Amino acid sequence: MTQQTPTAAQRAVAADRLARTTALMAEHALDLLIIAPSADQFYFLGRRMPLTERLSVLAIPALGPPIMIVPTLQRPLLAGLPFDAETIDWDETQDPIAVVAELARRNGARSLAVNDHLWSGFLLRLQQALPEVQYRDGADVLSQLRRIKDASELASLREAAKRLDALWGEFCTETIIGRTEFDIQRRLRELMTAHGMEEIGWCDVGSGPNGASPLHHWSHRVVEPGDPVVIDFAASLDGYWCDTCRTPVAGEPDPAFIEIYDIDRAAHEAAQAAIRPGVSCQEVDRAARRVIADAGYGDYFIHRVGHGIGVDAHEHPYIVEGNETPLEPGMTFSNEPGIYIPGRWGVRIENITAVTENGSEVFSTAPKELISLS
Amino acid sequence: MTQQTPTAAQRAVAADRLARTTALMAEHALDLLIIAPSADQFYFLGRRMPLTERLSVLAIPALGPPIMIVPTLQRPLLAGLPFDAETIDWDETQDPIAVVAELARRNGARSLAVNDHLWSGFLLRLQQALPEVQYRDGADVLSQLRRIKDASELASLREAAKRLDALWGEFCTETIIGRTEFDIQRRLRELMTAHGMEEIGWCDVGSGPNGASPLHHWSHRVVEPGDPVVIDFAASLDGYWCDTCRTPVAGEPDPAFIEIYDIDRAAHEAAQAAIRPGVSCQEVDRAARRVIADAGYGDYFIHRVGHGIGVDAHEHPYIVEGNETPLEPGMTFSNEPGIYIPGRWGVRIENITAVTENGSEVFSTAPKELISLS
Repeated sequence: MTQQTPTAAQRAVAADRLARTTALMAEHALDLLIIAPSADQFYFLGRRMPLTERLSVLAIPALGPPIMIVPTLQRPLLAGLPFDAETIDWDETQDPIAVVAELARRNGARSLAVNDHLWSGFLLRLQQALPEVQYRDGADVLSQLRRIKDASELASLREAAKRLDALWGEFCTETIIGRTEFDIQRRLRELMTAHGMEEIGWCDVGSGPNGASPLHHWSHRVVEPGDPVVIDFAASLDGYWCDTCRTPVAGEPDPAFIEIYDIDRAAHEAAQAAIRPGVSCQEVDRAARRVIADAGYGDYFIHRVGHGIGVDAHEHPYIVEGNETPLEPGMTFSNEPGIYIPGRWGVRIENITAVTENGSEVFSTAPKELISLS
Repeated sequence: MTQQTPTAAQRAVAADRLARTTALMAEHALDLLIIAPSADQFYFLGRRMPLTERLSVLAIPALGPPIMIVPTLQRPLLAGLPFDAETIDWDETQDPIAVVAELARRNGARSLAVNDHLWSGFLLRLQQALPEVQYRDGADVLSQLRRIKDASELASLREAAKRLDALWGEFCTETIIGRTEFDIQRRLRELMTAHGMEEIGWCDVGSGPNGASPLHHWSHRVVEPGDPVVIDFAASLDGYWCDTCRTPVAGEPDPAFIEIYDIDRAAHEAAQAAIRPGVSCQEVDRAARRVIADAGYGDYFIHRVGHGIGVDAHEHPYIVEGNETPLEPGMTFSNEPGIYIPGRWGVRIENITAVTENGSEVFSTAPKELISLS
């Protein structure tokens, strides 16, 4: 993971991203952008710095080279950065907030943005140390930068999806009847690790009535014959994420479940068919929602159709009513309509897809047909 | 993980924690405390809510019952909370910040604290929506609450440590020479999963010169005969963390490495011996530091001796120079001095320990002697 010598290509990518950042900062009248360890920071550094109680940030001024402010013990982690940066380190007994405040003063900063995942504890202390500065959400700049993926990013996303598909295929040869949700998620975590995925985001397993809670994590419930099982998992490779969901049935499916499964699959396909440059995010959401509503299940589809994905598992653009952003080639997001019948069961089918020049490419290729596991 | 019916004991624990919170809020003149998914929130809910771009918070007013503000699709996750709470949900097209602002107004809040890990993007939007309110760091209240562990919390920490010890023992029967750091961390992650650990925090493997970077993550470097390998890993069980580090040698150790290993071990033991109620955190740090400095390696011990541990892997109290907090029975933290020789190697030995009435209890029992792995 730690790279000691950046390649010329990595340096070129970092230089381009930094140049686009300062251009966007000028548009937004921002003097300084502070980015703590996060997907935003990974986007520039190409590595994950530790996210801890020790403040560690990349600071990008409107003018001049970037600055890394890190605790002394993190200094070795900066070897071979893909761009030239001034480094300021602080030791265990110093106050890093004072270091950031001094940097802001040195740059005459009147407006300062922070990455949106920066911990509030740091922001509150910075606001106290530097009350005269205007504070802004760095997402205005950073999400605009990140939402169009280049060819190399698309390749990483494709590879992450390929691995999840492969391990899902392996999982589908196993028995689920009689296993607990806990055991199933543990097995999938094992498979994700065995297939070389780096960071495991989650593995949610909702069997039978638990599947009616879209974000059910897992429980010790035992899977019984006839249970649909919503299985949603996400992991990263080279910093890029894949997130997928399938809903197999344990043994023989109930005809009433087959009905909602087919509706959900039709909604998923309608959303997929709607994706092409120029179409708005909300139109993709509407395409899926219309299918489910027309079938009489509109009240049981209680979330948006999707979320962007890249160096974060959830990022812009969100595929939701109200988001009028037009799709552009290189945008990547999930397509995951679901139907949830309280007390009974749920279904969700999720693929990751990219907008292409003429339509879309689907990264996840695991079968979408209803499958039965023994 | 999701519990449908809280036990009387769980309800009593939650009621006690809420009562202590509002008492501390009164001391700090706080009208409202907002807690997003985090260790802080787990401390009250006994479960992990998803931490995402969808705002989801526990709000504790100075007077009256707590309120859960969650996206609609998270509503089912609230079944069986260990305390009575009003629930307000917002759907995908609503603005949750407006909901929090309305709640603050309804409570006449003039001072509002947020948990210190709340994402800044949310805080900035809240500050814009409610500019008349004073914003504070909730850590003042929450870290004071959490830093003394009760008997049940100590039992959870003990069990988490026992599992890491067991899997470490299993790992130590394997070969490391010829394996990459990446492969070693992958194997340890597999073992953590197989031993039922729930969340894996990290698994850092620094072989040979990479061990001189205290926070080196891992690389594709192959372990060679004679390399010391710093292996630091952390995982949780029932929401409570263990974090441990050992530095075995691949094959025969170099006499120069044995020298610094023995110094580090003596420093670790000196810190351990210093732990008892009434001694300050910084005195424990000094006890270890003195041993290393006296041996001539003071400049190579570049971090504090330890960090608190509980529902977070890193939390108060920090065992660092400048922290005059006196130790109290029930505090739990790491004891992990290290020596790092740039370009050559590093050593760190880390155990988790609790302050007892008369001294300390060590949770991690894996051997501290220098071991050699083939």
